[in-house]
Amino acid sequence: MSNYQLSAEVRGLLKDVDLLIPGIVQDAQTKDVLMLAYVNQEALAQMIATGAGTYWSRSRKEIWVKGASSGHTQKVMSLALDCDGDALLISVEQIGAACHTGEKTCFHQPIKLA
Amino acid sequence: MSNYQLSAEVRGLLKDVDLLIPGIVQDAQTKDVLMLAYVNQEALAQMIATGAGTYWSRSRKEIWVKGASSGHTQKVMSLALDCDGDALLISVEQIGAACHTGEKTCFHQPIKLA
Repeated sequence: MSNYQLSAEVRGLLKDVDLLIPGIVQDAQTKDVLMLAYVNQEALAQMIATGAGTYWSRSRKEIWVKGASSGHTQKVMSLALDCDGDALLISVEQIGAACHTGEKTCFHQPIKLA
Repeated sequence: MSNYQLSAEVRGLLKDVDLLIPGIVQDAQTKDVLMLAYVNQEALAQMIATGAGTYWSRSRKEIWVKGASSGHTQKVMSLALDCDGDALLISVEQIGAACHTGEKTCFHQPIKLA
């Protein structure tokens, strides 16, 4: 359990406060899209309060702070919700590689267009 | 029903071919993140074949082509899957506004950091 709580203002922006929200993580400097990770209301509240990239692991069912084990931390520079309040854009300063494979971004598997 | 089918190669890259995949749509030129929309395997196959931004509407339960009614079409420049094969980055040439509100991107609701 996290000890952080969302403000009434932020809760009011969300389409459904109990839904998992996909968070698009973008490098603030290069604008590269680094990864996609999910937030629940507790992870979002913790991220707002601490300024550290903070997510909800769907497989482990727990909050995780990016870089806690790898050292590849993220300093959150800005946050924005989309028009529907069900997707989040997270602009970060990324230390080291964003991907656990060691690649700079997680999106390193191209699909060829026809 | 779509008449498009994924190649065995692309199917092999997906974590689960029956899952909905969040698609991050990024402006190829400015690198702004424009919107997040979902693809199922049929929408992805149609997008690969046609090069037009093509998604699955979770509310209407149907494939939709971005701009079909608004004229604000997307020409897909490149596609990349993430390391887990369960998120997609879609780089596009966006005609007009990406957001149905008329804003350039859907991510126009800032959340203040503490």
